[in-house]
Amino acid sequence: ANQALSVLNIQSHNSFNSLVSQLLTQRKIPSKGWSDQLIEHFLHELSLMDSNNYQDRAGVGEREGRVLSSIVNRRHYYMAHGIGRSGDLFSIQPKAPGSSLILKLTCYMAKHAIKLAGIDKLDCLVLPLATGMALTMCLLSLKSSRPQGKYVIWSRIDQKTCLKCISSAGLIPIILETQLQGDSVITGDLESLLKTINPLEIVCILSTTSCFAPRSPDDVQRISELCKELNIPHVINNAYGLQCSKIMHMIKEALRLGRVDAIVQSTDKNFLVPVGGAIISSRDKKLLENINSSYPGRASMSPILDLFITFLTLGENGYVEILKNRKKLVVEFREKFADIGNKHGERLLDIRDNSISFALTCRNNDLGAKLFVRRVSGCRFVGDKEKEVCGFRFRSYGSSFDGYPNSYLTAACAIGLTSDEMNLFFSRLDQLLE
Amino acid sequence: ANQALSVLNIQSHNSFNSLVSQLLTQRKIPSKGWSDQLIEHFLHELSLMDSNNYQDRAGVGEREGRVLSSIVNRRHYYMAHGIGRSGDLFSIQPKAPGSSLILKLTCYMAKHAIKLAGIDKLDCLVLPLATGMALTMCLLSLKSSRPQGKYVIWSRIDQKTCLKCISSAGLIPIILETQLQGDSVITGDLESLLKTINPLEIVCILSTTSCFAPRSPDDVQRISELCKELNIPHVINNAYGLQCSKIMHMIKEALRLGRVDAIVQSTDKNFLVPVGGAIISSRDKKLLENINSSYPGRASMSPILDLFITFLTLGENGYVEILKNRKKLVVEFREKFADIGNKHGERLLDIRDNSISFALTCRNNDLGAKLFVRRVSGCRFVGDKEKEVCGFRFRSYGSSFDGYPNSYLTAACAIGLTSDEMNLFFSRLDQLLE
Amino acid sequence: ANQALSVLNIQSHNSFNSLVSQLLTQRKIPSKGWSDQLIEHFLHELSLMDSNNYQDRAGVGEREGRVLSSIVNRRHYYMAHGIGRSGDLFSIQPKAPGSSLILKLTCYMAKHAIKLAGIDKLDCLVLPLATGMALTMCLLSLKSSRPQGKYVIWSRIDQKTCLKCISSAGLIPIILETQLQGDSVITGDLESLLKTINPLEIVCILSTTSCFAPRSPDDVQRISELCKELNIPHVINNAYGLQCSKIMHMIKEALRLGRVDAIVQSTDKNFLVPVGGAIISSRDKKLLENINSSYPGRASMSPILDLFITFLTLGENGYVEILKNRKKLVVEFREKFADIGNKHGERLLDIRDNSISFALTCRNNDLGAKLFVRRVSGCRFVGDKEKEVCGFRFRSYGSSFDGYPNSYLTAACAIGLTSDEMNLFFSRLDQLLE
Amino acid sequence: ANQALSVLNIQSHNSFNSLVSQLLTQRKIPSKGWSDQLIEHFLHELSLMDSNNYQDRAGVGEREGRVLSSIVNRRHYYMAHGIGRSGDLFSIQPKAPGSSLILKLTCYMAKHAIKLAGIDKLDCLVLPLATGMALTMCLLSLKSSRPQGKYVIWSRIDQKTCLKCISSAGLIPIILETQLQGDSVITGDLESLLKTINPLEIVCILSTTSCFAPRSPDDVQRISELCKELNIPHVINNAYGLQCSKIMHMIKEALRLGRVDAIVQSTDKNFLVPVGGAIISSRDKKLLENINSSYPGRASMSPILDLFITFLTLGENGYVEILKNRKKLVVEFREKFADIGNKHGERLLDIRDNSISFALTCRNNDLGAKLFVRRVSGCRFVGDKEKEVCGFRFRSYGSSFDGYPNSYLTAACAIGLTSDEMNLFFSRLDQLLE
Repeated sequence: ANQALSVLNIQSHNSFNSLVSQLLTQRKIPSKGWSDQLIEHFLHELSLMDSNNYQDRAGVGEREGRVLSSIVNRRHYYMAHGIGRSGDLFSIQPKAPGSSLILKLTCYMAKHAIKLAGIDKLDCLVLPLATGMALTMCLLSLKSSRPQGKYVIWSRIDQKTCLKCISSAGLIPIILETQLQGDSVITGDLESLLKTINPLEIVCILSTTSCFAPRSPDDVQRISELCKELNIPHVINNAYGLQCSKIMHMIKEALRLGRVDAIVQSTDKNFLVPVGGAIISSRDKKLLENINSSYPGRASMSPILDLFITFLTLGENGYVEILKNRKKLVVEFREKFADIGNKHGERLLDIRDNSISFALTCRNNDLGAKLFVRRVSGCRFVGDKEKEVCGFRFRSYGSSFDGYPNSYLTAACAIGLTSDEMNLFFSRLDQLLE
Repeated sequence: ANQALSVLNIQSHNSFNSLVSQLLTQRKIPSKGWSDQLIEHFLHELSLMDSNNYQDRAGVGEREGRVLSSIVNRRHYYMAHGIGRSGDLFSIQPKAPGSSLILKLTCYMAKHAIKLAGIDKLDCLVLPLATGMALTMCLLSLKSSRPQGKYVIWSRIDQKTCLKCISSAGLIPIILETQLQGDSVITGDLESLLKTINPLEIVCILSTTSCFAPRSPDDVQRISELCKELNIPHVINNAYGLQCSKIMHMIKEALRLGRVDAIVQSTDKNFLVPVGGAIISSRDKKLLENINSSYPGRASMSPILDLFITFLTLGENGYVEILKNRKKLVVEFREKFADIGNKHGERLLDIRDNSISFALTCRNNDLGAKLFVRRVSGCRFVGDKEKEVCGFRFRSYGSSFDGYPNSYLTAACAIGLTSDEMNLFFSRLDQLLE
Repeated sequence: ANQALSVLNIQSHNSFNSLVSQLLTQRKIPSKGWSDQLIEHFLHELSLMDSNNYQDRAGVGEREGRVLSSIVNRRHYYMAHGIGRSGDLFSIQPKAPGSSLILKLTCYMAKHAIKLAGIDKLDCLVLPLATGMALTMCLLSLKSSRPQGKYVIWSRIDQKTCLKCISSAGLIPIILETQLQGDSVITGDLESLLKTINPLEIVCILSTTSCFAPRSPDDVQRISELCKELNIPHVINNAYGLQCSKIMHMIKEALRLGRVDAIVQSTDKNFLVPVGGAIISSRDKKLLENINSSYPGRASMSPILDLFITFLTLGENGYVEILKNRKKLVVEFREKFADIGNKHGERLLDIRDNSISFALTCRNNDLGAKLFVRRVSGCRFVGDKEKEVCGFRFRSYGSSFDGYPNSYLTAACAIGLTSDEMNLFFSRLDQLLE
Repeated sequence: ANQALSVLNIQSHNSFNSLVSQLLTQRKIPSKGWSDQLIEHFLHELSLMDSNNYQDRAGVGEREGRVLSSIVNRRHYYMAHGIGRSGDLFSIQPKAPGSSLILKLTCYMAKHAIKLAGIDKLDCLVLPLATGMALTMCLLSLKSSRPQGKYVIWSRIDQKTCLKCISSAGLIPIILETQLQGDSVITGDLESLLKTINPLEIVCILSTTSCFAPRSPDDVQRISELCKELNIPHVINNAYGLQCSKIMHMIKEALRLGRVDAIVQSTDKNFLVPVGGAIISSRDKKLLENINSSYPGRASMSPILDLFITFLTLGENGYVEILKNRKKLVVEFREKFADIGNKHGERLLDIRDNSISFALTCRNNDLGAKLFVRRVSGCRFVGDKEKEVCGFRFRSYGSSFDGYPNSYLTAACAIGLTSDEMNLFFSRLDQLLE
């Protein structure tokens, strides 16, 4: 029996160990994805490092990583300590070195993923908070170094979260109204607005890149140049922008020419994991350290574990491939959407720089609901409806522009969409438009 | 074959369905725990309700609950939507009715658990945030209705998180120094302190019940009476206090006689799940609604799912039993700890009202480290050390009292501790003290 | 990160590795059971040794351990090769050293388990065949060395399998009728029967130890002495006898004083695994080698894996404990069964040496069915019914004796029965007897 | 909450239930494969039907489906009863209707799979025994109706299992020597052989279709015609022949024109499951019933469950596709193999009717071992070596022909081989031949 086990060291384990050691040395997404078997084996190895899994241990703290349910234990691979210590969210937890290692590696791999998506040398925090709360954390952190700061200048984008993340932080939003250019809703006159406010009272400007048509990504280059000039922090809400090379290029230019303090991305929208995580990336290590060290206490490790597993599953090749696939599909998506529109007397709106979300003029205000019943989710009908959010009233809510001239239906060609799904959508849409 | 399946409806499924229907109608922890098999079956039933699991669906939103890794999909039982919509953390997510139902039921069961622990009629939010961030959310929410509020009066407790949760919220802590009474560190002279501050500038008083010896639980009854009198909000950090009937009684009295706005509990410390969740309970529905509706965007469902599974596993009987077991063990723990102390010329400190954490005088400042090497985790040696946290300097950090007269070693008899573990601890301690 | 991993070697992995190395050196059930976590980690380590899990492998055989379904792959821990090669069921399969190691260790642990149950120094084969087929394999193997052999002398036991295993082997059963002694049905007059047959034409005598009341275990000592004298092979069907120390003692004496070629045990009835495996134990290594080498081809590894996992879960302590628990429960079971009988005018039959199965006189012939509807399974009503099996007709089928004087209901106090279940049974029985 | 659950019945569950009901009514492989999620949900539904999973049950039989290890329980989806009752392997087990249903459905789907592979209207038994033991079961069953039968005429095929399955059944093989035709080893002179033996003493003729080059499939049409003429049973070992449409056509013709009693297929080689199952198919329902009813006792359900899951995963489309893929790959495989041979002065042998296994002349007798070290498994070098199996001596063992004129290396293009793997093999072979 002992002889047989020696085979293990010679054949299989060498190869497993060399994969692990590559990961630990290179600190990036492995070039080729790992099998589920190898990933789970690695997770078990790591979890054995956590003190709650030591043999013959005695835990006499008030929290000792005990897990009652075996279902819960299994689904977390016996890791129970979460991340963080009172001091710091990302420091090594001596009771849980395995979990801590996963957190570190996930941040490194996130950095690598963002490089693959187009921007190099961005440090990353992966937070177990979705985009909205991650933005709130950025704002709270920036505020702590802006003693007079109380305002956030917010380029209007009609998603509640984007406004609520400001008031959640106890700050006051100042709305930068958008402008219409052709069909596109674009960044408004920031220069004039800035002349009316004391820059020291501005915590930051919050711009948005990934957004629903007919809104275009904000002109982050221009914004960042103004921020640099006036010494105002700049946070970019890039929720699902990693999948779009055009957006990534715009942010790259903003970083090169102006001031960008933090860029916030969703993990679920970019990497196909369940909702619950965000990546804050920055060239300013101090800001990240500040967020890190001001986080009060511990946090769930679950969203980080999901991302860790997904990076290993995908591999560099896999991630590059799904980015390419979307790029290819977008061309087809746009064409077919326009064709079906034309067929039924509607028109695909021509939105500058938005290659994720598309909008088709539409007179039928219950089309979204009808599509949902036919198992098409994600379409939104937008007409001339007013809405109140955080005490502000917006007209044509959804379009990000008061009095947007068209009613329309949006649909997105986001990462992960399959060709089959797209065709299913178009055929159902086609039927309903008749 | 069809005949055989009919047996299913008559025998087994009736019994499964009746359990489910009881849960949905009674909205409390089932009296007897469910088997893993039944729980997982129920989770699968619920996940089939979420739109990402519909057959022949077409998702054309920017986020459609797609999950790339099958490992990740399995560990979340194919639920990907997290909780919350932009409007509200706890509203039903039409794309994910199954997940939404789990969230609702978990809140109901949390309410029931707190009733079993001693306090009835407290509404509950279960947040996918650990205690520190949950406290920050409470403070931010209270602040939004206290326009002049900028201070939090904080009864000193030497855990970093407890102070950081205030500055994370962008608020300014005012320290209420503790007092010494015998060995016990108790709530200080709040009355005098309050005379020096405009109540309207106080966001709330933050008291703590569950704490390390030699600190005693705060006198929440007195605090709440003052809060009522002066119309100041009161938040109780009851991190791991549900397991202690004495603490629960103190809070009950505080609720009856004074003002308590919110009580915050950790899910992992009280219910043996991995770190990542907290329960905010309150008699003030508006406060909970406010927290709920001010949460920006979605959040991970994972900590809620863990608690859901654990409640079903435990059952009412099971929960009552682990509470009882701890109560029994405490008696033995205290005695043995004192005996070993006496044997080695040390003394068990006599701390009022703290039946979770115990402290033994100790001259050996590396005892904690030595114990950790011997796989005893959770012990802390505290001597006369100064420490800076959030810009404040504290002496005798750990004891919650400047110049605490003893150095000592703490150990806790917390929920989930087994008799074997306790004995292992004492035998290793005994060896090391020789 | 590399530093963190080094902790692994120092703390957790040393302890895991030392458990594994103990198992490989001591080749017996570990004294203390392993946790699910450690067992699964070990299974993954072993499966990585199998060639189907090598990275960058190319398989160009006609069977290469490819598994299509990820569900199937997971449930077998990625082990696909089964056991055996064309030459031999238990030889190391070079393509699958991990699987082969599991098989070897399971056989060693089975040997140890049988020692714990009472008999030392019995070599064991664990076959992925249930008891019936395992008996057939024994008979076929014995036959191959008895050129004139065509008969199997079979001490009547009324379970179809016990007779069918003979005809399945293409052999002819000769029935040794039982005798009545008080209530007990005992081994008949073998001496007289043997005088009528040429011993060389007898492949073996097949006796049975574990059996339903009112049958008693066969007098294996007497049978084995006769077998020794006449040079006739002797196979004992000890299907669920490991749990009964009395039976084990009888077999031990038979081994000491007479001839016993093989003893066959069920894995599911003795070790609480799903149906599908059997242990053939023997002091005759040649017989085991013969069975081993005559097995045509490969076989499923699944029943062996179940036993492997269960041995590791139980540990020596665990196994000894469930044996003890049953022993204790039997006393109570017998008493309560008798009491309920007396209460309703029935009588517990007094059966010699049978401490597993009990029989209560019973006039109600649909009691078994009524109990089944009330979720009591395993009870059998036996009355004066005739039945044909393999061409033979038996009266009072079930009692193993033509014209057994009572009708009765059987119930067993078998390993794994809980006290709660027992009480549930008695309370339902009590109700039905009223 | 109740409202939310009603969505379930309307949307998701309807679709799940309709899939299940289609399966139960149509009794064939679903046209489109099911997701892992749906399959596992169905397995849980079925397992709840088994009595060991009833709530509040009391089991007082000697075997009650109790499973000790939760790992074991999970991997069997809580199904513990195996298949079979003492009476019959395939009858409904009242304690386990769920398991019984799986068995029935698996047999139906096996029938459908064989239809898709080319032959309609063959009834099927799926046995939890690998090919060798399944053949033994066929022989034992045929023997029971051939009172004088003692011989099996065996068309030589050099795999040990194929010969051992005869002696395992206690029968005597008579070897039909093969003949050489060009490079091919083909069926020998059966007519002459049959003239020398009393047909009544022949239990059956055992022919083989799927085989290693240079052997060709047996001429099953000619054999079956002779069997029909002389009233001799005929069993075809079609271990991995389902993947080859040519072989399937040959068997179809044999069925149409002559006598074929049973055709035996491996589940692992044809359907990519772990080793452990076989399908016996026949137009003779009585033979199948005979095998079924003569099986002594119960058996593991595990190999059947694997096949059940795999059929559902594949779907009809999926199975047809992997058959097609292999057919396409074969063309490429043959060409590349020949090319590499030519490049190095070797020759691809021209073997009639064998489109699975290929042989290249080869002078290097350690090439197989060298390839194995380079992670190529499945290649076999065959030279002029003698070997003894079951007491018979064979020359040129492996080639199935005494004195085969070439030494050679075999490699197979079997179902599941990927294009990448094939290319890896050829590149490694190329290197080694240099």
